[in-house]
Amino acid sequence: MSQPSIYKNHSIINYNNGVVEQKEDAVVQEIPLTLFLNQVELSTMVCSPGGYKELGVGFLLTEGLIQEPVDILEISLREEEGLLWIETSHEMPPTTNFSQRHIASYCGKSRAALYFINDARQLKPIESEILFSGQHLLKVINSLEERSTTFQLTGGVHSAALADSADILIVYEDIGRHNAVDKVLGSAFLHEIPFRDKCLLLSGRVASEILIKAARADIPLVLSRSAPTSLAIDLAEDLNITVVGFARGQRFSIYSHPERVLI
Amino acid sequence: MSQPSIYKNHSIINYNNGVVEQKEDAVVQEIPLTLFLNQVELSTMVCSPGGYKELGVGFLLTEGLIQEPVDILEISLREEEGLLWIETSHEMPPTTNFSQRHIASYCGKSRAALYFINDARQLKPIESEILFSGQHLLKVINSLEERSTTFQLTGGVHSAALADSADILIVYEDIGRHNAVDKVLGSAFLHEIPFRDKCLLLSGRVASEILIKAARADIPLVLSRSAPTSLAIDLAEDLNITVVGFARGQRFSIYSHPERVLI
Repeated sequence: MSQPSIYKNHSIINYNNGVVEQKEDAVVQEIPLTLFLNQVELSTMVCSPGGYKELGVGFLLTEGLIQEPVDILEISLREEEGLLWIETSHEMPPTTNFSQRHIASYCGKSRAALYFINDARQLKPIESEILFSGQHLLKVINSLEERSTTFQLTGGVHSAALADSADILIVYEDIGRHNAVDKVLGSAFLHEIPFRDKCLLLSGRVASEILIKAARADIPLVLSRSAPTSLAIDLAEDLNITVVGFARGQRFSIYSHPERVLI
Repeated sequence: MSQPSIYKNHSIINYNNGVVEQKEDAVVQEIPLTLFLNQVELSTMVCSPGGYKELGVGFLLTEGLIQEPVDILEISLREEEGLLWIETSHEMPPTTNFSQRHIASYCGKSRAALYFINDARQLKPIESEILFSGQHLLKVINSLEERSTTFQLTGGVHSAALADSADILIVYEDIGRHNAVDKVLGSAFLHEIPFRDKCLLLSGRVASEILIKAARADIPLVLSRSAPTSLAIDLAEDLNITVVGFARGQRFSIYSHPERVLI
């Protein structure tokens, strides 16, 4: 029941009330884990390090695929490769059913990073010369917070927005961090607003999947009140995307491609 | 670019420093939306009300399925039924590819509630006579917060725990709210710990999918520092699960089945 460290250190540029310094800061890790049930690939999740067997078993339990400990015949894990096999004593229903149903159960389930690595046609580094001032980034992220009245009322939703170098253009709030981003990007797309000189604002965490959404839409800067993951930072470095996190009040931290931020 | 109200009022029992009162409080809604791409069912997401066309378009854009506004031929929405059709000008690759890839993109994508309604065999109301005192619930949730050092360091993870009427038994932290829950439940399952006299603790929001996980594992009480959604409350009422939210310091709110909480 103990867990390994789920974060690692990363070099960042920190801005706080006019003072700029480079320092090391702790960043959460994301690890892809692919679960095979009776030799059939069932799901790939992105999770924190540790508890892989527990995650696989809990997933099967909460998807209604196992009921009793005796249902499990064998569990084997190849940790370095992120592969987990679980053998059960039951015949399983066809996996086509589960491919719809298990969608429900994970917040960070993704092969995206792997796809990215293997599929350079789909994602390529952003080409954009746009610059933003640090003060402008603070202005828009603080403005997003002021507008996010639902969160303040219910404590239950995430907000996302698109901004240019003048102001916020589009805002959505949603219970799903990814939904809020997709609504903002879909709205801009329907209005034929170009993305290459914009920044994407988020109230929530910047995980790898959000980074990939920004890359697919061609957005050069992602700005969040919260923290990026280590995998998101790695992808951002490869994809030439600037990630600015913990932006609130008069402070922010730059995690990748600081050359787009004037401070 | 405007959005309808994404919350509605719900009757709760509020405890604050020894004072108990019944009142109305705002709760975020969850709405299922099923997206059909060129007449093929692609995905069902759970989202906040409004922006359905934008969500569908943003999903296709950020999955790399459309690139230009001209790629979209037609969009039609049947809002009351939660159905969205998008017709594109491209031939689409086989959907079997996407069933793996689009898993990445949603935090709240679920048919679970619909499955629940249609499939009574899978989920049935919890039978449990267990009672918890309000002071015990505050003790364990405040203890979870103290243990959650990673969050305090990085601001990037969720924690989940299992507790009985004495103390916390198992704790996990994960970047995914659902992963943390599955790790806790999987660990208890592997240790053959029964669930029927336990409560599930969460740092994050109680969405419908978390509620369904609790129901599948046979847990009678879900306790969170954060807010439940309206769909989670509805399911909890049906499934005889007590939901206690906003538990922190010396306050909490009971959203369903208050008879299990002694205050």
